[in-house]
Amino acid sequence: MDNLWTENIRKVEPYVPGEQSKEKDIIKLNANENPYPPSPKVFEAVKNFDCAGLKLYPDADAGKFKEAIARFYHIKKENVFVGNGSDDVLALSFQTFFNSEKPIVFPDITYSFYPVWCELFKIPYKTCPLGGDFRINADDYKEENGGVVIPNPNAPTSLGEGKGFIEKLMEYNKDCVVIIDEAYVDFGGYSSVELTEKYENLLITCTFSKSRSLAGMRIGYAIGSEKLIASLEAVKNSYNSYTVNSIAMAAGTAAINDKEYFNKTVSKVIKTRERVKKELRKLGFEVLDSQTNFLMATHREKDMKEYFEYLKTQKVFIRYFNKPRINSYVRITIGTDKEMDIFLEKTKEYLGRF
Amino acid sequence: MDNLWTENIRKVEPYVPGEQSKEKDIIKLNANENPYPPSPKVFEAVKNFDCAGLKLYPDADAGKFKEAIARFYHIKKENVFVGNGSDDVLALSFQTFFNSEKPIVFPDITYSFYPVWCELFKIPYKTCPLGGDFRINADDYKEENGGVVIPNPNAPTSLGEGKGFIEKLMEYNKDCVVIIDEAYVDFGGYSSVELTEKYENLLITCTFSKSRSLAGMRIGYAIGSEKLIASLEAVKNSYNSYTVNSIAMAAGTAAINDKEYFNKTVSKVIKTRERVKKELRKLGFEVLDSQTNFLMATHREKDMKEYFEYLKTQKVFIRYFNKPRINSYVRITIGTDKEMDIFLEKTKEYLGRF
Repeated sequence: MDNLWTENIRKVEPYVPGEQSKEKDIIKLNANENPYPPSPKVFEAVKNFDCAGLKLYPDADAGKFKEAIARFYHIKKENVFVGNGSDDVLALSFQTFFNSEKPIVFPDITYSFYPVWCELFKIPYKTCPLGGDFRINADDYKEENGGVVIPNPNAPTSLGEGKGFIEKLMEYNKDCVVIIDEAYVDFGGYSSVELTEKYENLLITCTFSKSRSLAGMRIGYAIGSEKLIASLEAVKNSYNSYTVNSIAMAAGTAAINDKEYFNKTVSKVIKTRERVKKELRKLGFEVLDSQTNFLMATHREKDMKEYFEYLKTQKVFIRYFNKPRINSYVRITIGTDKEMDIFLEKTKEYLGRF
Repeated sequence: MDNLWTENIRKVEPYVPGEQSKEKDIIKLNANENPYPPSPKVFEAVKNFDCAGLKLYPDADAGKFKEAIARFYHIKKENVFVGNGSDDVLALSFQTFFNSEKPIVFPDITYSFYPVWCELFKIPYKTCPLGGDFRINADDYKEENGGVVIPNPNAPTSLGEGKGFIEKLMEYNKDCVVIIDEAYVDFGGYSSVELTEKYENLLITCTFSKSRSLAGMRIGYAIGSEKLIASLEAVKNSYNSYTVNSIAMAAGTAAINDKEYFNKTVSKVIKTRERVKKELRKLGFEVLDSQTNFLMATHREKDMKEYFEYLKTQKVFIRYFNKPRINSYVRITIGTDKEMDIFLEKTKEYLGRF
């Protein structure tokens, strides 16, 4: 029999991240990581980092790092919040802004952490079904809400919406905070950072894990009005004042300052994506028009779970979601050209085999 | 007039950390940081770190790092949890284990984050007054509780309790989780890690920020039964799967493997502490018998706020808490011998002046 003290342990259904195989020679297209290393400036910043300074706490305000991010976007330091990965920033934002008794609302097919955070923080929520074309319809978010959170581009659909969509959303939702999760925006989506000046209740969350190749460094940030950012700071400071460590700030600053490398690698990923999309379509796949670093694809004649499992036996890891509506699709992260050539070859093998 | 959306923003009273002056030549004895740099092995680990790997997410389970910690304590990997600083570990533990309707309980004079987390996570709590000698009395924790959290040694009192105290506490609290916060234990306190095998509901939290000189790296950990650790993992994975970045794990592993350096620097801090304690007593201070890297002191004839402010004008920063019961004390972090000599000199100046 269980002890009494176990009764008050919080029960949660943990998020299941993309499989991390211990095998060395796999092609890893299952976690939307960037296939290119971070900027050479990051290597330099880490190599030259003075570890003696680690005896001191980091700058709790992350002043210099925030200034670098602000410079990149031509905004003010006071419009920037930084955290330990965008999951940390998003989770804190949920806790900070979603305290209404009305449910918050997000798409039915979206980042799987949203409902998990709602359960964890006891936030009421409801989901809005995507259209048949997997698009988000702004009119579905017209009702009075406790808050709205939408990834743009959305994951795992890879589809993005434009300025008109965001403006509509903001017009409909003046009495709650609207979070746009722009984790993938750099790969061709519309960024609504420009709208944060117009809408004081619009918060954008971003990450260094995708377009800046720093998933291992855990850096996320948010952009919004001074009022929103100050509230996030207050809650962060009451939870854990020092979330971003000193080396992460040094590496992050180096990464955001290297625009050239950023543009170059992002362009390469986009170019590869467009090529792979065409190739897959030639092979009979339906592939959504991605604005991200991954493709959402299905095949008229094939079972996608079987395809996913076949590729796994060939040491090519993609992602399959065993969930209603998307269980006939796979999600394929864009790797290097060489990796994608192997992926395409294995795909042809699979199609030819049956 | 405020907009409607601002109504649902969480209001918190932020924790106020020790002042971080931007001035360069100050003597910083106000944040309980270690005056010595981290182990040379940490410098090496950072210098040799392959930044290319940062494009990938860190190991969510932190397997190798946990194994290194487990080896140090002669326990199993499954008894170890790691997080982004011990504040992160503690806050998660509050969320994971303190879900009873009965209040959790902690001393009235203790780490100031405890009540802040209770407010933030809506956990009912009550405090138990320390004795007149600033000691914690185990018998005060006899009632039925929703949970117990006690730092041992306590901060800012610097006083530690022994094995008998912890065993009593555990006998009284069989139906809730008891957290012992051992942030300062390495400086001479009693560690109850040995008791985690006997008491399945005992969780110890620790940090790399003090005895391992890695405050800037943000590494905390917890030790407890497999059941407690598995629950923490589940909640962590539903919040943010990757809290400790790859470089922090490499640096932390290097630090915990270098026992020799650890013993050497900890001994130095203890030796300096004992010397400064004696000197201060000679100058008419009452100084508690510290088991930490700081001293809690008061002076019969002097106003401690005035003393604190005088030292500040002399570029020596110590800590003063404007709180009932401890507002006649100051907290002095132990620096290098050289720093403490200047501190003592300025203290003599202050005493001679009036």
